[in-house]
Amino acid sequence: MIKGHQSWIFESKPTIISSAAVGGPFEAKGALAEDFDILHEDIWLGQDSFEKAEKVLLEHACERAIKKANMKKEDIDFFISGDLMNQIISSSFAARTLGIPYLGIFGACSSAMEGLALASLIVDSKFAKHILTAASSHNAAAEKQFRYPTEYGGQKPPTSQWTVTGAGAGIVSSEGNGPKVTSATIGRVVDMGISDPFNMGSAMAPAAVDTIEAHFRDLQIDPSYYDIIATGDLGTVGHELASILLKENGFEMPKEKFTDCGTLIYKKEQQVFSGASGCGCAATVTYGHFLNEMRKGNLKKILIVATGALMSPMSYQQKESIPSVAHAVSIEI
Amino acid sequence: MIKGHQSWIFESKPTIISSAAVGGPFEAKGALAEDFDILHEDIWLGQDSFEKAEKVLLEHACERAIKKANMKKEDIDFFISGDLMNQIISSSFAARTLGIPYLGIFGACSSAMEGLALASLIVDSKFAKHILTAASSHNAAAEKQFRYPTEYGGQKPPTSQWTVTGAGAGIVSSEGNGPKVTSATIGRVVDMGISDPFNMGSAMAPAAVDTIEAHFRDLQIDPSYYDIIATGDLGTVGHELASILLKENGFEMPKEKFTDCGTLIYKKEQQVFSGASGCGCAATVTYGHFLNEMRKGNLKKILIVATGALMSPMSYQQKESIPSVAHAVSIEI
Repeated sequence: MIKGHQSWIFESKPTIISSAAVGGPFEAKGALAEDFDILHEDIWLGQDSFEKAEKVLLEHACERAIKKANMKKEDIDFFISGDLMNQIISSSFAARTLGIPYLGIFGACSSAMEGLALASLIVDSKFAKHILTAASSHNAAAEKQFRYPTEYGGQKPPTSQWTVTGAGAGIVSSEGNGPKVTSATIGRVVDMGISDPFNMGSAMAPAAVDTIEAHFRDLQIDPSYYDIIATGDLGTVGHELASILLKENGFEMPKEKFTDCGTLIYKKEQQVFSGASGCGCAATVTYGHFLNEMRKGNLKKILIVATGALMSPMSYQQKESIPSVAHAVSIEI
Repeated sequence: MIKGHQSWIFESKPTIISSAAVGGPFEAKGALAEDFDILHEDIWLGQDSFEKAEKVLLEHACERAIKKANMKKEDIDFFISGDLMNQIISSSFAARTLGIPYLGIFGACSSAMEGLALASLIVDSKFAKHILTAASSHNAAAEKQFRYPTEYGGQKPPTSQWTVTGAGAGIVSSEGNGPKVTSATIGRVVDMGISDPFNMGSAMAPAAVDTIEAHFRDLQIDPSYYDIIATGDLGTVGHELASILLKENGFEMPKEKFTDCGTLIYKKEQQVFSGASGCGCAATVTYGHFLNEMRKGNLKKILIVATGALMSPMSYQQKESIPSVAHAVSIEI
């Protein structure tokens, strides 16, 4: 801990002993398909609602992460999870299935890193040995809740983003092998007045910038410290804006190093407008792709800056702008 | 920490250096009116929507707690908050106003104690000096979202509960005077198959029982340890059920000791059916009434077991039952 600052430094370096990513049919056609543990051909996952399908995605990711760690769910001390659904029902219903003492969180699409930060703090301070943390989203469930049911075939502007159908989960442990969580920076809510729910990337960019700058300031490092600095789901529009804002504030981010989960997950020919979004975006790209790259030795130090737009359809209807937050977690191997 | 168990024991005994409770006009007529710091005559709090009114309630509770601690918001390291609104907009919009690094949580009506447990853990493990934690609910905003707008004048069965219009906030610090948080027990999700949203108390009672028993088991204590053991918002129906279940499992809970925030806050002549509920129930009764009683010397050891029904209107419409959770926090002076 650096007193008076917003970052946590984990002396014991909690280990991500296993992780898993689960996706849907569109993710199966994406650029990172090989990094998913399970890819479902059926967007319904055999369920009778998209909401239930999202719960199953999350359960699959959790169960796979537990299996990959050669553990049973009884070995896990706590489950920390969040998602985009009203009252985070995906997480809470998965917690019912798992039966593990449960802490529900909500940080919109920043939830994956809020969960990983909290799990790491709890393990680092020896209040748990093993914590399972996860996040999920489902394209059709999110569209139905936040915009229009996908069956309507509504048109979208180029600034809009595509909610990932996917769930990512990781087990953070006090011992074992794997990538280590070295620090986390908890974000402040930043709101620059953008109120267009079809332009979330721009709304969230200033929050990402605020957290990245706080991270560098608190840890007294600069962008050269990391191999990759990845924002959660700013998309091309928001990520470009974040680069400009960081440059204006004195942080020149090298193009090969500064990336965004929302621009990585799909192929160029997939029509996703500004890029991907959703809790499942940073969750699957981190717990799948990036951790796999670390295990292969291709990446040594990464900073994941998951961004969240903290609005609801009602706050938008009541003419509120979109408050945003970003939580950053540093992982090293 | 007791390894393999679900309770946290805080060696440094984090201190609740200040707390505040804010309520609406119905709470002003209630049994605990004197324990509120601010009571609003206007259910709208001068806002043009009930949702915005709830945000203002929460802001007032936070601002008052900060003022009572003779602090400024810049002195607070983190803000942990949750509420019942979709995407916890009350908390996130209050976090925008406060500008303090923010962790959003969701445990339905258990949120107040989830927040206090996490705040205490973070302070105990020296990752923060001062954490502000809060929770809120607003009767008309909750009715509109979960059941019917209050303007419809819908009829309710006797098992139903009355959502508190109120917010409670506390500042947990590594030093200072005041009641100390000594331990917390994080609940598992329990679901006994009840699916009636007008009978939340019965749905939540088994979760309260599960957490209370885990607390006694983990800490190797029995009900005699506490002056008061208060469930969050089971109401008369759920609380009676919890007493019966605990007795069946070998824990005879003395009537004068085992109470429920939802049965305390209003007067008998106030028509609230089975009792009060909402995140604001356990939050205002704890951060107002119980902490005041501790400061006056009338109570020395209390256990607050906040209960949450983790459903959404959609999960109910999709014929799901109501998963429930309870988080317990032990406070001593």
